[in-house]
Formats: sequence, structure tokens, C-alpha cells
Amino acid sequence: MKAAVCYEPNTPLRIEEVELDSPQANEILVRIAATGICHSDLHFLKGEMPAAMPIVMGHEGAGIVEEVGPGVTSLKPGDHVVMAVAFSCGNCSYCREGRPTMCVENLPVMSGAVLPVGGGTRLHKDGKPLHHLFGLASFAEYTVIHERSAIKVRNDAPFEVVCLLGCGVSTGLGAAMNTAAVKPGESIAIFGCGGVGLSAVMGAKLAGAGKIIAVDMLDRKLSMAKELGADYTVNASQEEPVGKVMEITGSGVDYAIECIGNVNVMSQAFSSIRYGGKCIVAGMAPLGAMFSVAPFEFLLGKTITGTVQGDIRGAIDIPRYIDLYMDGKLPLDKLISSYYTLEEVNQAFEALGKGEIIRSIIRFPKAGSK
Amino acid sequence: MKAAVCYEPNTPLRIEEVELDSPQANEILVRIAATGICHSDLHFLKGEMPAAMPIVMGHEGAGIVEEVGPGVTSLKPGDHVVMAVAFSCGNCSYCREGRPTMCVENLPVMSGAVLPVGGGTRLHKDGKPLHHLFGLASFAEYTVIHERSAIKVRNDAPFEVVCLLGCGVSTGLGAAMNTAAVKPGESIAIFGCGGVGLSAVMGAKLAGAGKIIAVDMLDRKLSMAKELGADYTVNASQEEPVGKVMEITGSGVDYAIECIGNVNVMSQAFSSIRYGGKCIVAGMAPLGAMFSVAPFEFLLGKTITGTVQGDIRGAIDIPRYIDLYMDGKLPLDKLISSYYTLEEVNQAFEALGKGEIIRSIIRFPKAGSK
Repeated sequence: MKAAVCYEPNTPLRIEEVELDSPQANEILVRIAATGICHSDLHFLKGEMPAAMPIVMGHEGAGIVEEVGPGVTSLKPGDHVVMAVAFSCGNCSYCREGRPTMCVENLPVMSGAVLPVGGGTRLHKDGKPLHHLFGLASFAEYTVIHERSAIKVRNDAPFEVVCLLGCGVSTGLGAAMNTAAVKPGESIAIFGCGGVGLSAVMGAKLAGAGKIIAVDMLDRKLSMAKELGADYTVNASQEEPVGKVMEITGSGVDYAIECIGNVNVMSQAFSSIRYGGKCIVAGMAPLGAMFSVAPFEFLLGKTITGTVQGDIRGAIDIPRYIDLYMDGKLPLDKLISSYYTLEEVNQAFEALGKGEIIRSIIRFPKAGSK
Repeated sequence: MKAAVCYEPNTPLRIEEVELDSPQANEILVRIAATGICHSDLHFLKGEMPAAMPIVMGHEGAGIVEEVGPGVTSLKPGDHVVMAVAFSCGNCSYCREGRPTMCVENLPVMSGAVLPVGGGTRLHKDGKPLHHLFGLASFAEYTVIHERSAIKVRNDAPFEVVCLLGCGVSTGLGAAMNTAAVKPGESIAIFGCGGVGLSAVMGAKLAGAGKIIAVDMLDRKLSMAKELGADYTVNASQEEPVGKVMEITGSGVDYAIECIGNVNVMSQAFSSIRYGGKCIVAGMAPLGAMFSVAPFEFLLGKTITGTVQGDIRGAIDIPRYIDLYMDGKLPLDKLISSYYTLEEVNQAFEALGKGEIIRSIIRFPKAGSK
């Protein structure tokens, strides 16, 4: 079967024939139908974040279960699944507490690019192992993943939309709905209108937020934010965003979400919340960057925290988000800028790097998505 | 009547006769029975924090209502009251939301050292106005304060104990019980065992915390922490406290409270919490100090926030704390290191500056405290 393999950062992915093992205990074989291309993939590709090489990237995958390994009870061939970037074991204290995105088994999966639990890879090229990004590897026609890396979803939802929910889109939705837990009528500012930020706008809209303020440097992204529910937009290349938020709200927003991963923008987000407000970091800053704050701000009751993949409970929330989409209440498909084939993956990354797209999708014709 | 007046920072307070106006609308005349000496007073005295001068400091006061001004309905002569350092108007959105320590009327009172609402002073020396620290001024035989700066308390509680609840002690109790809201069995580390930190230890103990870890540089303070409920003590001059917290807990504490106001200690406190844990700043850092943090820590679900005077609802919580004390469940009196008279106020500050005492109390013989 074919996969897009990254042999070293800053080189094009190679589309080539690779070997895939059969699923082992608690694993499933998935035929990929669609996969989103996420900024995290690009970070790894550009070497901005370290990844074990060679590797098959791609983690926003959706597809059909083809085969199950020994001991798999939760899924059967024919089931439609979405891949969850945050593996949850179900057994650790975080999983049991209802915070599965913080599962203690995640770190080895993330850093090792191996399968949970216990490691190893199922992909090979000429007998040599290939790593699976986040234990997933969706830039391929097929993959083998742990059954708990898969979330069963309804069969009538389009793969090219639901695949988005494995990572960034759920992070944005959850940052607004779970981490901020914005209540009807409360105000929120969202800094950065890429896939995560626009999803946060949608989450805030769905939760009934009073004033939704979207901040970005590009009018094109701000128009999209407006279309998805932002009440106000601020082009930070033309206006000082903190002053503008104060002008709109009087004393600052109840919540701000930083969706870029830039420490200066984090400072703006933190400065834009009211006394007692909450600032949420969703963006991943480069290693080594430090966020600085005057501690008296904390004595004004201000809070800063992060969202861990939207603090979602994937198995519960992803099917809900899909129902909302299918019922016309959550226009996830508007995030999709363009479609590619696996062979066009390098073009897709090029477009992403230029900031031209919100989310692009690789579709695999064989899987026959809706 | 006599008051201790500060004419400029770093000079001894002068005990002298001053004039006090009658209470105006919504104000009361209080005969002070006892007042605590707080580190904040010392900060102002040393010029580390700016205060309007000349000023009568002192804000941890308790006493008896002698006279009420026009419109006062909540208090009558003879009532015993504790002064609340955080004025709450009862009308702003924070007060109505149940977060009265964040009242919008507080800032002018704090920074102007005038009476709420609307300013002005009731104290004079030779016709010239003297400021009231936090709108209170308890280093005096009598004072005039706004009725909402006073919390009515039971008549059988000793003034020299209940006076502590107006500021630092409530901050510490509330930081553990309200801001952390530590639940039975959860773990907490408290950095700094002065009045605020030891009160946080007591609050954590009362709330049933599982592991209470007290950190300080002085064994004397750590012994006190142990006496008040700490399960573990760490002398940070001898052991690296973050490593020690990890050794005790395995993966970090659920909560850490910083009670010193030192950005390096804030970093230690933040580093000692587990993924998903909460760090609370209670200490006031010097102006200009900056707290730095690697933002990926937020993506581990870690939170940093501050406590605003313990996030207490003074009128509800202070009487409760007094009941707990009277019932033998909250040994507030153990925080008192020594007693002074108003004439000895400079000695009291000298002892505080040397770190010799946790809390010292000025008692006024006339008021006939228990």
C-alpha cells in the first residue's frame, strides 16, 4: 500500500509503497478515507518540533475498520472511525477523572511516534521500521492503530468533514466550550483565526457567547470568522487589539483564547481579559519561548491556563460534534479550503505554509466517502 | 484621640493626638479594640509600595461601633465589627456575582487611601487631612469607616483574634478553601509560612487535604506549619523544594500556593504542580518583577491564577471562620506571636521586619477585650 514518508525535515514527503503489519492485540486495521492536514504536521516537517524519523505523518484521519486484532471488542470491520490525536488508556487517573486528553500514556506515543501501549511500529519500508506520528500515520492508504486511538462515529457522516475532529478543530471547539466553558451572554476574544481559532469562534457561537471578538492579521480569515459567528473582528496589523477589545467591552473580555503559539500574542490575550477573567493558551509556542507576566495581574483575579486538546472526552464529544454538524448546527465543512490526493501532499503543505488555507483534506478515492 | 501617623516612608510612626470627624452618610465611628500588624503595612512604611502621605495605617482592625452616620441600617452602636480590607459596594457586577473582593470601588480606596464611596478623609492633624490606609486606619483609638468596610461579628469572640480576619489570615484561608478549593484527599504545597501561608495550611487542613506540604527557609516557621496541620515540611534553604514535592507526591501536587511575592518562588510553585494542577499566587511581588513561564506548560493543563483576598465573601465567610475558631476547629490564636500597645507600634514593626513574628497584635486597653 502507498504512504507519504518523511525521511528528514525540510525534504518533500516521498509517496511510496510500504509494508503494514497485521493488527496486534487491541489494534485495528483502518482503510483511510480522508485525512486533514494540520499545522502540527507542518511543524514536524519543517523540523520546528522534533519527530522520530523516518515517519508517516498525518493524524486527522477517518476511515473504515477493515480488520481487528485479538482482544478488540469495541469495534468491528465496517465501523466508521475518526482518529483521536490524544490517546487515552482509560485506566490512568486522568482518564478516570474524565480528562482523557491528559492520559499518562500519551507522552511516549507523542514523543516516540510509536503505537500505544508499549511501543513499536507496524509500518516498514524494505524491512526497516517507519514511525507513526502520534501512533496514527494517516498519510497512507491503510494504517494500524490502537483501538482506543479510534472513535466510532455514525456511518452517514462524510469522512472529509469528520476527519477534522481528531485534532485542531476539536481543540478550538473544546477550548471555547470546555476550557473557557463560556456561558450564554459572556464575552470572548479569539486571537488567531486559523483552524483552531475559527473552531473556537464556532464553539463560542454554539455556546451562546454574547460578544465574540476575532483577532487576526488577515482580512480573509476575519471574514471567515464573521461568517462563522464573530460579532466583531479586529485586524491586528491595522489596530492595536487590546485597546480595541477594551473599546468594545468596556473592561475586557471574560475569556481570551490564544490560537497561534506566539508569546507576544499571549500577552495581548492576557491583557484583554477583565479582572477575574481567564486566558487560555491553545497555540503551541516554539521551544524556548517564554511568556512573561507581571504577577500583580494574578492578584486581580486573572487566570492563565492551557487547553489540552480542547479538554474533550473524545468518545463522548466527537460523536456529539458530528451530530451537531449533521443537524446543521455546526458548519464544520466551511473550514475546508481545498482537497488533494495523497500524491499531492507536498502541494498541500506548500499551500498551508503560505497561509492560503484553513484546512485542506486528502481524500482517498477507494474508500468511497459520501 | 491618639493615632500612629506616618509622615514619610522609612521614618518612625509618630503617636500623636489627631482630630476625627463625625461619621457622614453610611459611615460609622468605631472604637478600636485590637488591630493586627500586617506585612502590607510594612511594605507601605518601607516605601516598597506607594501610599498617600501623611497616613494612618493599620487595617486588620476590630472594635465596637460607637456611633452611626445618616442612612446606616446594618449596624448600631454596641455592635462588634471586624474591618474588611477589601471594600465591597454591593452594587457592581463583581459584588453581585459573589466576588466582593473584586469590587470596582476598591481601587480608588486602595490607591487613594480615602474613604469609599466618593473619597475624602475623616482624620486631620492641625486641620490638615490624614489619609486612611485602605479607607480604614486602625492604628488609632477610633476611626470612621464606611459601614460596608465593617463586618458584624458575634460579641463573645476575642477582638485580638478576630481582628486577624480582615486581611492576611482570610487571604490564606480563602486561597486554600476558595481559590484552590482543595477537596478532601487532594494534595497541596504552600510556599512561605508567614501569616498568609500558615493560614493556608489551616485552610487546607480544615478542607481535609490529603498531603499538605509546607515550604519555608526557617525551621521555626516550619514547626508552626506542622503544628497547624502540615503533613510534610521542606526547608528550602537545605533542600530543593520542587524535587522534594515530586518525591513526596510522585507527580506533583494538585495545588500550590505562593505566599511570599517572589517570582522565583512562583516558578517553584508552578513547577511543583502536577499536569492539570493549579498554582495560586497570594504573595505580592515588588512592582516591576516579572514571572516567566514556558508556555508549553499550559498545554499540560497547568493553570496559574491569583487569589483576590482569599476570594472570600467577607460578610458570610468571616463570621463562619469565627464560629470555627470559637468551636475549636480553627486555631487562629496560634498565629499570634506577641502583643503591643499603640505606643509600641514601631517596636512591633521592627520585630516584623526581622521575621521574628507571624502576627502581632496591638491591643487598646480601653475597649476591654475579652
